[in-house]
Amino acid sequence: MNLIFATQNSHKLSEIQHLLGNSFQLTSLKDLGFTDDIPENQTTLEGNALEKARFIFSKFNQSCFADDTGLEVEALNGDPGVYSARYSGLLSDFGSEKMRSLANIQKLLVALENQPNKNARFRTVIAFITNTGNEFLFEGIVNGQIVKELKGDEGFGYDPVFVPDGYNQTFAEMSLSEKNKISHRARAFNCFHDFLSLNNTF
Amino acid sequence: MNLIFATQNSHKLSEIQHLLGNSFQLTSLKDLGFTDDIPENQTTLEGNALEKARFIFSKFNQSCFADDTGLEVEALNGDPGVYSARYSGLLSDFGSEKMRSLANIQKLLVALENQPNKNARFRTVIAFITNTGNEFLFEGIVNGQIVKELKGDEGFGYDPVFVPDGYNQTFAEMSLSEKNKISHRARAFNCFHDFLSLNNTF
Repeated sequence: MNLIFATQNSHKLSEIQHLLGNSFQLTSLKDLGFTDDIPENQTTLEGNALEKARFIFSKFNQSCFADDTGLEVEALNGDPGVYSARYSGLLSDFGSEKMRSLANIQKLLVALENQPNKNARFRTVIAFITNTGNEFLFEGIVNGQIVKELKGDEGFGYDPVFVPDGYNQTFAEMSLSEKNKISHRARAFNCFHDFLSLNNTF
Repeated sequence: MNLIFATQNSHKLSEIQHLLGNSFQLTSLKDLGFTDDIPENQTTLEGNALEKARFIFSKFNQSCFADDTGLEVEALNGDPGVYSARYSGLLSDFGSEKMRSLANIQKLLVALENQPNKNARFRTVIAFITNTGNEFLFEGIVNGQIVKELKGDEGFGYDPVFVPDGYNQTFAEMSLSEKNKISHRARAFNCFHDFLSLNNTF
């Protein structure tokens, strides 16, 4: 089965190709010669994932999917959520990705400083549009705690301060394959993978 | 959301009600005054789950789902699979459920006696039919090993000889809540739950 993955991030494409396995051939936007930015202006993960998938579907009229991920902190009423990547307010073309992540983490730790409740969850939503235009959403969640001290060099984003429930390490202390067994993204893509495998009429 | 669960097993109904949560009200066949047997004559888990859901949909024309589960052993080319509950050949009204399970386990251990490869997986398939007749399948898998010696009194079926990957205990040595975190059935119902929550137009 051929699917367009609505992302301009080639690293993400190869990671998801690995998660979905060889029965599914992902077409990148680069393969299609499409280099425009993809709009992502909604206020929910569901909205963003759908907006991106609909945008690409409107261009190519082929089966496609998009995802969006956020960190939802209980004591902050679900913030930074859909704004996770730009929480600090730094523009996305300012500095390195690593630097922007550190600025986001710093803002988060300040916001939680006098807050005993450190419950948080990572959530990924996938929007899938079939070649006939039917839309489906899939979700993956991992619950955990925000810790004060940054630990580990793996992963990205908030990984150095997120300890998933049942573990003593942050996501950034785990190898990619360890993280992939339990992560929000892996869970969402497992659901999506199984759904595609079992409903092979798209 | 109201859903008919195509099962005559009231224990299973309350377990699945718990897994799906309060946003979904399960209607039992008993609630509907329907006490007939549900046909289950296919040669795959997918086929059985669909057959059961289609049968109930044809009677009531409402959103409904059914599931089927099997133990698939690698060295036995996926057997007992769809025949897991009746592997020993004992009729389903012969003796107690416990006794039939022990007969099934005994047959399995004999079949694997001279077989170094003990890889096995439990697999659950859920078939869901929307009130407009659209059909969807969901899957949950847990990989593990068959062990020679029966251990534990919890659970049912092959649980006393199945050790899931990453654990040292059989499923029958785990509490229901422990097993529910990692089991094939929980995984399938998590996917189904998320799908229902996110695609709330059925």
